[in-house]
Amino acid sequence: MRGTMQLFELGAVESAKEIRDGKLTSRELTEGLIGRIKAVDGAIEAWQYIDFDHAREQAARADALFKKSGPRSALHGVPIGIKDIYDTADAPTEYGTPIYAGRRPEKDSAVVALLRDAGLVILGKTVTTELASYTPGKTRNPFDAARTPGGSSSGSAAAVAAGMVAIATGSQTYGSVTRPASYCGVVGYKPTFGCISRHGVLNQSAQLDHLGVFSRHLEDAAAVTRLLMRADRNDLDMLDYEVIEQIAENLASPPVFTRPRIGFIRTAAWDRVGPSAQRSLEALVDSLSPYAKEARLPRSFADAEACIVTLMEVDMAKNYSKEYAYDRDGVRLSDMIRRMIEDGMRFDHDKQQWALRLREVLSRELTFVFNDFDALLAPATEDVAPRGLSSTGNPVFSAIGTLCRTPTLSLPLLSGENGLPMGVQLICPWGQDAKLFGIARWLTDFMKSQPTAWHAAPITPATASD
Amino acid sequence: MRGTMQLFELGAVESAKEIRDGKLTSRELTEGLIGRIKAVDGAIEAWQYIDFDHAREQAARADALFKKSGPRSALHGVPIGIKDIYDTADAPTEYGTPIYAGRRPEKDSAVVALLRDAGLVILGKTVTTELASYTPGKTRNPFDAARTPGGSSSGSAAAVAAGMVAIATGSQTYGSVTRPASYCGVVGYKPTFGCISRHGVLNQSAQLDHLGVFSRHLEDAAAVTRLLMRADRNDLDMLDYEVIEQIAENLASPPVFTRPRIGFIRTAAWDRVGPSAQRSLEALVDSLSPYAKEARLPRSFADAEACIVTLMEVDMAKNYSKEYAYDRDGVRLSDMIRRMIEDGMRFDHDKQQWALRLREVLSRELTFVFNDFDALLAPATEDVAPRGLSSTGNPVFSAIGTLCRTPTLSLPLLSGENGLPMGVQLICPWGQDAKLFGIARWLTDFMKSQPTAWHAAPITPATASD
Repeated sequence: MRGTMQLFELGAVESAKEIRDGKLTSRELTEGLIGRIKAVDGAIEAWQYIDFDHAREQAARADALFKKSGPRSALHGVPIGIKDIYDTADAPTEYGTPIYAGRRPEKDSAVVALLRDAGLVILGKTVTTELASYTPGKTRNPFDAARTPGGSSSGSAAAVAAGMVAIATGSQTYGSVTRPASYCGVVGYKPTFGCISRHGVLNQSAQLDHLGVFSRHLEDAAAVTRLLMRADRNDLDMLDYEVIEQIAENLASPPVFTRPRIGFIRTAAWDRVGPSAQRSLEALVDSLSPYAKEARLPRSFADAEACIVTLMEVDMAKNYSKEYAYDRDGVRLSDMIRRMIEDGMRFDHDKQQWALRLREVLSRELTFVFNDFDALLAPATEDVAPRGLSSTGNPVFSAIGTLCRTPTLSLPLLSGENGLPMGVQLICPWGQDAKLFGIARWLTDFMKSQPTAWHAAPITPATASD
Repeated sequence: MRGTMQLFELGAVESAKEIRDGKLTSRELTEGLIGRIKAVDGAIEAWQYIDFDHAREQAARADALFKKSGPRSALHGVPIGIKDIYDTADAPTEYGTPIYAGRRPEKDSAVVALLRDAGLVILGKTVTTELASYTPGKTRNPFDAARTPGGSSSGSAAAVAAGMVAIATGSQTYGSVTRPASYCGVVGYKPTFGCISRHGVLNQSAQLDHLGVFSRHLEDAAAVTRLLMRADRNDLDMLDYEVIEQIAENLASPPVFTRPRIGFIRTAAWDRVGPSAQRSLEALVDSLSPYAKEARLPRSFADAEACIVTLMEVDMAKNYSKEYAYDRDGVRLSDMIRRMIEDGMRFDHDKQQWALRLREVLSRELTFVFNDFDALLAPATEDVAPRGLSSTGNPVFSAIGTLCRTPTLSLPLLSGENGLPMGVQLICPWGQDAKLFGIARWLTDFMKSQPTAWHAAPITPATASD
């Protein structure tokens, strides 16, 4: 009935269609993923919490509901992984810190509630770094267990990469969607800020926290995000519901590009990109001619890194003051997050005002760069996933998209050392999420026609034991 | 030599060309304007400070410089009026309040220095309202001395309307360029925020204060503004110099439109537009078919007024705290500004945060509206200038352009009660100042072909005595 493709290789949209067509049940799909998790997660440890029986129950309910009244959404019956900073009423939400070990929220976060309502199976909670910051969790990179999967959405990216789930939620305050996606060879999508409610999600920095998703297939990232683009008065930074609906509606049918105008930005951190990664990116841009050419960012972007770090640490100092005070003996918080909080406490008002003003300037200036381009292409990370598990890598290339609140995609189109995956980042203007997917589709198809490209992640991470 | 046109009727670009062509000297032009001022200003009182001999000296110097080394800029030798909140080293700068009577700045503001350097004649200081806020100065509307010229750039708008000067500077924290331009029947241009240094200009609200200009001719507003678009490290909110230069360069050659897509927005304050003004605007939009159609703003714009008032008053409470403290006996500040400062003091942090967040949302959402339109057309004011001199009218229709930092123009294209002028507001996306002028040119030409339109202000204000 299934042909040669194993259940865990199916995309989310694809499997939902099979469920709708009666070729597959949510129960079968969930069982397939459970099997995959049992086979490969020992070496990856992507999950913070997972209850197989509860997942099976949800799948059985989804199947019953489908029989009774049809699909609740385009992803009815599909399992999804949830980063462990999203509240779930039926599973612990621990924020990656022993301070919150065993914490049981009373209510689902807005996103989880929408996913349940859309008939998805909340498969489990994926590992995050400590308080969605820099100190790693237990997860390892599926392509090389001696390397980081990136953070803070470590478990989500790794679980998707290893075929344990087709889609998972993440979040990005600095670079926590783009970076793990790049390191794990999956699609990482950070939508336009203000389209998805963060109610019930750990608040690290209200002005920087973006929710996002991981998937192996482009269409899956768009499909799950469309379900989440709903107004909610509980998140004060949300856009008007009509704008959100329009962005979501556009996302349903991305424009088809035949002659995109792509601007390649090296960004101010180009000299930190590894030599072979530099060559890969430059070769890519060369091969994209005449559709891509170098674009220059205004000089002010040189301060983007200092700007985002200032805003983030000031907000962390405020938002994590309770945890900081609670941990006076210094055993429950890492040195790294203590230092970030203390740095944030020390930033004076002038420095914060400087950063706020610069953020505004950068946002505006980026719209100016987009006068000449449909999308910008940039490094997603400095290179492939770095060796070691003590760091989650550098988020610097995500600063632009996060500060300017634009939609971004990390696409698994390149490879580096040992054939490890490396992402390519696309950035579109604010609100142009559909355009971003249109360009991404064009670029992905183009890359398939190139002999040198790293072809979309086969689901055979080095650590898979099956 | 001059034909039938009197000197005071000349536009700024036009007269500078005559100076370059040797048909006119700056001294002759300045003398012509001095004559005009003597003839009409008694009834208007547009000037806070003017020294005719000093103006003549500047003009003579401009002529000498031209002879020696040619024109310093496209407006060499042209006199300009300066709103009395811009510091001038050679004239008092009193901010419209007795608190600063006789105040003599040591240095020119950045704008005045640029104008001098470009060979313009700083003709005099124009009347502003008290601390560029709501309490009127002495100026009356040139079309009806019983009506307000609008504020806070009252003197600049009135001086230009009455032919006392072809160009004058203004500023807008809420509606102080758009509104007096509309009431006085002149062009009022507020450029994209961040392109003109505010160094040496009264700081009412750093995040809302925009500098702008008045003129009778569209080309004059663009020409003078191009001279002012220069980076300056003293204004922390300025854009990168390359972006500023690009915006200025584009402004030199606005695109020519033949089929503009204009969106008519009634805004949330439409029910405050007077009945005949509503009819005029609707008739205009009807006549513009198929180039114009109704556009809808997201619902969140209903709070734009509360948002801008909150931000402005919080900043005023901070920036005017010295003046407030100094005026404990309550005789030097008006009740109105005291009340605004006190309101600002009372707004709590949450309210300010709400307003800051909403401003960000509105800015983003406006870019979304522009996906379908080249420019938005909106009321500039509620109607023609209201009767009475105790109020400067309502700035509410300027909230969008000020909050969203977009370029706006008020064009003197309509008429209302007693044939008094009423402006039409055009708004373009951030950084698209050239596009704004392109659309404005198209619209102005279109209106000239319409029998019902109010044709560009003849320089015969009702109060002119010549």
